[in-house]
Amino acid sequence: MSETHFLDGFLNPKSVAFYGANNKGSSLAAIQIMNLIKSNYDGNIYPIHLKLDSVMGYKAYKSIAELPEIPELVVIVLSAKLVPQIFEECGEKGVRRIIVISGGFRELIGSRKNTLTKELNAISNKYNMRFIGPNCLGVFNNWYGTNQENLAFNTSIWEHIKKGNFSIASQSGTLSSHIWFDPESVDLGLSKSISVGNEANIDLVDCIEYFKDDKDTSVIGLYVEELKRGKKFMELASEITKKKPIIAIYVGGSEAGNRALKSHTGSLAGNAKIFDAIFKETGIIQTDYVQEFLDIALILSRGIFPKGNRLGIITNSGGPGAMAANNAEKKGLIVPELSESLQTQLMEILPLNASARNPVDCAFDMNLPYFYITLPEILMKSGEIDMIIQYGVVGFQDVLDDYLKYEKIAKHADFHHQPAEVMDSLAQKLLQPTMKNSEKYSIPILYVNPMSFTSPWSKRLRKNGALLFKLWDRPVNALAKVCEYVDYKNRSKKT
Amino acid sequence: MSETHFLDGFLNPKSVAFYGANNKGSSLAAIQIMNLIKSNYDGNIYPIHLKLDSVMGYKAYKSIAELPEIPELVVIVLSAKLVPQIFEECGEKGVRRIIVISGGFRELIGSRKNTLTKELNAISNKYNMRFIGPNCLGVFNNWYGTNQENLAFNTSIWEHIKKGNFSIASQSGTLSSHIWFDPESVDLGLSKSISVGNEANIDLVDCIEYFKDDKDTSVIGLYVEELKRGKKFMELASEITKKKPIIAIYVGGSEAGNRALKSHTGSLAGNAKIFDAIFKETGIIQTDYVQEFLDIALILSRGIFPKGNRLGIITNSGGPGAMAANNAEKKGLIVPELSESLQTQLMEILPLNASARNPVDCAFDMNLPYFYITLPEILMKSGEIDMIIQYGVVGFQDVLDDYLKYEKIAKHADFHHQPAEVMDSLAQKLLQPTMKNSEKYSIPILYVNPMSFTSPWSKRLRKNGALLFKLWDRPVNALAKVCEYVDYKNRSKKT
Repeated sequence: MSETHFLDGFLNPKSVAFYGANNKGSSLAAIQIMNLIKSNYDGNIYPIHLKLDSVMGYKAYKSIAELPEIPELVVIVLSAKLVPQIFEECGEKGVRRIIVISGGFRELIGSRKNTLTKELNAISNKYNMRFIGPNCLGVFNNWYGTNQENLAFNTSIWEHIKKGNFSIASQSGTLSSHIWFDPESVDLGLSKSISVGNEANIDLVDCIEYFKDDKDTSVIGLYVEELKRGKKFMELASEITKKKPIIAIYVGGSEAGNRALKSHTGSLAGNAKIFDAIFKETGIIQTDYVQEFLDIALILSRGIFPKGNRLGIITNSGGPGAMAANNAEKKGLIVPELSESLQTQLMEILPLNASARNPVDCAFDMNLPYFYITLPEILMKSGEIDMIIQYGVVGFQDVLDDYLKYEKIAKHADFHHQPAEVMDSLAQKLLQPTMKNSEKYSIPILYVNPMSFTSPWSKRLRKNGALLFKLWDRPVNALAKVCEYVDYKNRSKKT
Repeated sequence: MSETHFLDGFLNPKSVAFYGANNKGSSLAAIQIMNLIKSNYDGNIYPIHLKLDSVMGYKAYKSIAELPEIPELVVIVLSAKLVPQIFEECGEKGVRRIIVISGGFRELIGSRKNTLTKELNAISNKYNMRFIGPNCLGVFNNWYGTNQENLAFNTSIWEHIKKGNFSIASQSGTLSSHIWFDPESVDLGLSKSISVGNEANIDLVDCIEYFKDDKDTSVIGLYVEELKRGKKFMELASEITKKKPIIAIYVGGSEAGNRALKSHTGSLAGNAKIFDAIFKETGIIQTDYVQEFLDIALILSRGIFPKGNRLGIITNSGGPGAMAANNAEKKGLIVPELSESLQTQLMEILPLNASARNPVDCAFDMNLPYFYITLPEILMKSGEIDMIIQYGVVGFQDVLDDYLKYEKIAKHADFHHQPAEVMDSLAQKLLQPTMKNSEKYSIPILYVNPMSFTSPWSKRLRKNGALLFKLWDRPVNALAKVCEYVDYKNRSKKT
């Protein structure tokens, strides 16, 4: 379905021409080409340059007229004033899709009004072309071609991102491209990303219309500074959020925010209250924070939609349990006191100084199978909670391995280093039953290990599908917003 | 001054005896000893064990009576019911300080009330002893002995933490001990940490009284579930916050929070509103989040106390500037529009499509010396702002190095890998003038690089003293709370 949308061609071109590319590291167009090389793009690449014979190993052409084919996409990174002429040449050649990276379409030229944007639209209308930008950072499609790992159509992102079902459309190039560093620490997979820039021709509404029917997109993220087609946006968003969640960062409302926007995309953002109302009415999940934006996206991209807002907390330490419970209730989640019969059942396996009231605090009695498997299972079966956060899935063997680096300890300790296979197998044994129970009872579970996200045990947990966080603050905040969305969805189904 | 406080002996003992230690990895007492070994503790260690001849290479004793000296500190990790008898034996030996790690002092024994806590206090009074706990995780002193790196008196923390001026007292062992993993990513240095547990004998008030005059403590962090001596706490806190900031996480007020606390330290936490009022009146910085707790501590531990709440934002990208500005104003900071003359001065070096209004957005025109040195200097000199957040201090060479891993790129690129010395020298040249200006004009600057915190360029920035964050949300939130504290301090000076 989305294949018939005009944006699909921007994300799956079999050939691309680049205006402005050279071999320098400071060249934005060269960076776009290098991203294609990094992402193993297998289509044709045509640099266009007046003087160079080749760019990054690709034969360069003096003009688009000389290209042996009509490129399915043209990317322009040249001075704004040159762009109208390039548009004409592209139109003549038969080009249908252009991305204008270049900025400089807003400010005055001397004392005259800048009419470049208007000119671009006139030319693109004349030749039946569409364009993204200007003042954007390009596009990213992790599902380009086959499902091969590290194959993408990627002009904009510097790192290899794992494939996923989360797609972004953004009025900030940074949010669409530069929040993906450190992929080792990011479990959120990316599907598609579109930097819309000034939206002279293609806007956020086009993007959500495209994502609506895109089979590779289950969760949509937006960065919004302004809405050029507010009514259409609301209609579409209301329709989409019944099926796919939308998470949005909206910037505006504060004086400084609006001042920043006026320079950034030239928009005069509306009143924050109006946007709050729009998002609330259409069921869009709103956040001010990029980290929370990513956390919510991660949870939703795993298909986690808790059936209600009752949170069960399992912990091996009182403080984190108390902090998580306290924050959860502040954020509108319920941390119900468990029934007497359930408490009795739990206390049968918990030590005397434990608590089974919720938080379920095993008081550091670390019998691993009961901590990882039995306790969550009892809670999942109970029907008394809708989701679980479990604190304390610590890599004890990692800690012991650290101690064993000290000669004095290694010489006397009654414990030993465990081979990777043993630990792999342990992680699997402890995690897999709970992953299955989570699915069976439809009770999501989020884990917290205060150790490094890339520590050996954390990696093992993540490899077994655990949704892992380093501290308890972020998963609670993100779950609270996810539950608000689920509540909206349920209410909108009833009406 | 703090050397005369009775707590000083708990943090600087020349000898320690451990009840409950064996050579197993699951032994909490063994873990305490192994932490001492890791931290190169050079005092005497005396394991006490009925059967073993030695523990972790240290000669073990059958009873404390057999020890060749009176240990300056005794640590007990044995079943609660054994502890009174041990207290008696310690008293007989002449011991003055005990840490009781063991839990189990709250619950009923059969149907009888548990009187163990009362017994411990009676015995310790009889022998003029003081004790920390029960139900705690021990203490940490990064300034034990000489200033030698990796030398500490540390029974509680599993990792080597860099030395610093931030000290913690906590009713949660997790918060005092287990938020310090991943030290590569933590720029906050730690001075002292005390896990007070159930506070049967020594409480948070004792700790802040000790930290008040401790020359190694400039910033104090607290985790509070209850206050046993509320009036004394308020008196002391009011006195301390005039000189040293206190940051506190308070848990309580929500139903689930209180339920968690009742099981955790047995306290009935007060009304959250009362605690809000206590913290506000005494100038304590309050947060619900551990990450924010650490961020505020990091900023304050660098001696950053902005003169006012006017924030200057420098960015190379519109979105992050807009998000930071918007959030800053929501949190009570001012992002002032710069004066016309200052804008004119800035626009002389900025490109035409830049903005000098604040955020100062250089529109990705990355002339490094003017981005790192000149722009901040102009703002610092101006007198129009009190602090700066600078987004976009990205490691471009790291990105280029990544591209060069691809043969096709390496073969054709006009750029090259730069040796470590060249990059080290570049970072120094770009950062040092700004560090000096920051001091000269008393305008703190916080940096944001979206790349990994341990990426080569991030490490270089941090090595040059840059206060670095990965995203813009956290530094804005933390600065807003720091400014509230500065405002409190200024107001309290006037009265």
